[in-house]
Amino acid sequence: MHHTRREADDVRMRGFAQRHTVDAALAWLDAQLQPLTAEIVSLPFAAGRVLAASVASNVDVPGFDRAMMDGYAVISDSTEGASAYTPLQLEVVGQSMPGCPFRGVVRKGEAIRIMTGAPMPDGTDSVLPAEWIGVEADESGTNVSSPHVIVALAAVSPGKHVGKLGEDITSGTTILESGRVLRPQDLGVLSSIGHGDVQVVRRPRVRLAVTGNELLPSGMRPRGFCIADANGPMLAALIDRDGGLVDFPGLVKDDRDAILKSLHSDADIVIVSGGTSVGIEDLAPMLVAQYGELAVHGIAMRPSSPTGLGRIENRIIFLLPGNPVSSLCAYDFFAGRAIRVLGGRSKEWPYRAVCGRLNRKISSPIGRLDYARVTIADGLVEPLAVTGASVLSSTTRADGFVIVGEDSEGFPAGAQVEVWLYA
Amino acid sequence: MHHTRREADDVRMRGFAQRHTVDAALAWLDAQLQPLTAEIVSLPFAAGRVLAASVASNVDVPGFDRAMMDGYAVISDSTEGASAYTPLQLEVVGQSMPGCPFRGVVRKGEAIRIMTGAPMPDGTDSVLPAEWIGVEADESGTNVSSPHVIVALAAVSPGKHVGKLGEDITSGTTILESGRVLRPQDLGVLSSIGHGDVQVVRRPRVRLAVTGNELLPSGMRPRGFCIADANGPMLAALIDRDGGLVDFPGLVKDDRDAILKSLHSDADIVIVSGGTSVGIEDLAPMLVAQYGELAVHGIAMRPSSPTGLGRIENRIIFLLPGNPVSSLCAYDFFAGRAIRVLGGRSKEWPYRAVCGRLNRKISSPIGRLDYARVTIADGLVEPLAVTGASVLSSTTRADGFVIVGEDSEGFPAGAQVEVWLYA
Repeated sequence: MHHTRREADDVRMRGFAQRHTVDAALAWLDAQLQPLTAEIVSLPFAAGRVLAASVASNVDVPGFDRAMMDGYAVISDSTEGASAYTPLQLEVVGQSMPGCPFRGVVRKGEAIRIMTGAPMPDGTDSVLPAEWIGVEADESGTNVSSPHVIVALAAVSPGKHVGKLGEDITSGTTILESGRVLRPQDLGVLSSIGHGDVQVVRRPRVRLAVTGNELLPSGMRPRGFCIADANGPMLAALIDRDGGLVDFPGLVKDDRDAILKSLHSDADIVIVSGGTSVGIEDLAPMLVAQYGELAVHGIAMRPSSPTGLGRIENRIIFLLPGNPVSSLCAYDFFAGRAIRVLGGRSKEWPYRAVCGRLNRKISSPIGRLDYARVTIADGLVEPLAVTGASVLSSTTRADGFVIVGEDSEGFPAGAQVEVWLYA
Repeated sequence: MHHTRREADDVRMRGFAQRHTVDAALAWLDAQLQPLTAEIVSLPFAAGRVLAASVASNVDVPGFDRAMMDGYAVISDSTEGASAYTPLQLEVVGQSMPGCPFRGVVRKGEAIRIMTGAPMPDGTDSVLPAEWIGVEADESGTNVSSPHVIVALAAVSPGKHVGKLGEDITSGTTILESGRVLRPQDLGVLSSIGHGDVQVVRRPRVRLAVTGNELLPSGMRPRGFCIADANGPMLAALIDRDGGLVDFPGLVKDDRDAILKSLHSDADIVIVSGGTSVGIEDLAPMLVAQYGELAVHGIAMRPSSPTGLGRIENRIIFLLPGNPVSSLCAYDFFAGRAIRVLGGRSKEWPYRAVCGRLNRKISSPIGRLDYARVTIADGLVEPLAVTGASVLSSTTRADGFVIVGEDSEGFPAGAQVEVWLYA
């Protein structure tokens, strides 16, 4: 048994026997992913959420014909022949305000003062805009809504400046399709048809287990041989960005039981940071293999090679390397994708891509995908000279990154490349 | 006095005497805007916030030389001449783990088993990767950390696979500049230098006063001549998107005192929705003029012409038309810009622009800016046929909008246009 352990350790110390391609890892991952079930949220919390079911209206919006301009509601016939040279008198017999309509019936030769949005009075079919009227020299009225006479300086045709019942939304119409990421104006439309809440895809619960006995919790100053946790705050913000609900109860010791407890937490996704390689101290991969399926371990990419993907029961497990750049890169390639898809979103990166010209070559061996941090200014792309996956500040100095695919040896200076912009 | 009131009403009913250009309105607005003061937030709440002061590190990260690979820390001289054909023996005399270093001094011919991230033991200057060692047939050891012999199958040069003290961040270096929108990885870097919180620009407090006696609160089904409030939920989501803190205590009656109370609320910005035109029932413009400055009222744009901008004391006031498309458009042109700048952000739209070819002309009179909702598919841009500013569903059917400047008569079919994509 001791013998066996030594052998196992030596194998591990020598690295991964075989690395999966990124494509193979993604193929396994994508087969695990489907959107979660729905939940109901009220509109003030619905922006940016993903609609879980299409929404049809069962009301007309507006529910009545309404004025589209301030002016006078009339029977259009009453204005026939009116012009600046041949003004036609109309008697103002009332007013219609939004929410407070004129209740009578309007006859030819009469006009109802009306505000934009107010219901069209019975009998009227058009609005004579305020700009097209003159006022008779009748200054006796002290109430603007009391009867007085105006003159029409132009004719209006039937339906002019009238918004018809249902012109915005007709009852029975599907107004928003399932899967849509809700925009601010969508909330307005939902509200206008009487919805105060909406069915959206549940946000994936993501347990974040940041391991490493050398780590101090965020907020503590690094001292001696201890370093302050960088991955916890970073990963929590990434999970939130991708629509996940972060469960990050604190650092986890490099201890079998502590890690196992995290792996069995009540979550849709568990992300373990650190201790994911092939050393005997790397407990998480062994535990995933023992209690579930370690489907992918070791990926042909740099950084992030010691990444693992697996399942335990219904939970998808991501083992992200402790080096912070590896952690960011592996998150973006695998964990973020899963969080987005479970939450009903696109599997694509939330980063915007721009093109630029390399001012220096990027080399990368065939058979390995490389994640090269770059700056870009005036379309000129400069790779950062960085030594390794531990220099997190390279990802704050960088504007984004360039991906060199596994079947490429890189790009020569002067090549046009696609840059994925951070933030 | 009655006479005066009638005259004033008639003038108002006839529309704005003169409209401001969009550029003139923006010029006034921009002169009012400067970022707010700072506040301190803890890292879990800092993503997406705007840094209020540059941050320099007063620690080195890492604070010690560390291994960049799993393997054996050695004095590089010990491996000189080693190859697969001439393996060199090294005696393993201890191990160095992250946070748990080897405390002795290493001599030539000795090796310390070391994990990635662990401190380099005194005396060592390089790491011999695990892949480059062989193991002597010494199976007596039952503890992997007890002395045993390995063989080096390659030589390493001084400094090889060692991350030097301060290689990520050197004490005294400015790591993040004031004004930066914090990325997830920035939080990691801040944490790594011992910061648990950070100074960011305060979020502008935005009071939202949605007026209209005809409105029912969001969540109620429209009935009779009442409509459900669409602008409240939409504007609240827009304010939040732009980094503002929404204060939306509920609908406001078309009542002088109620509106005045909103205008005097404790906020950096007050947005009044509805009742912003020139009718006698449009109270907000008169109140802003009376109690502060109504700098802009009436803008040469469609929709959103009845928009007002002003100040009361330190508060910037936005009077947005009640028609929901106007409300969205005026928010995006004016209020959103102010919220972003007060919060330390770019005044530019948060929308992404793409180019496409118009499949139908867009006409617009000289002297007026137009906001045309469009769909775009396969680079083909189709203007939506919509009658007016009241059809909010046009902004959910649309993929985005095209702006026709005031000095343009529009675009012919086939023209390349810039489309600002919603969401």
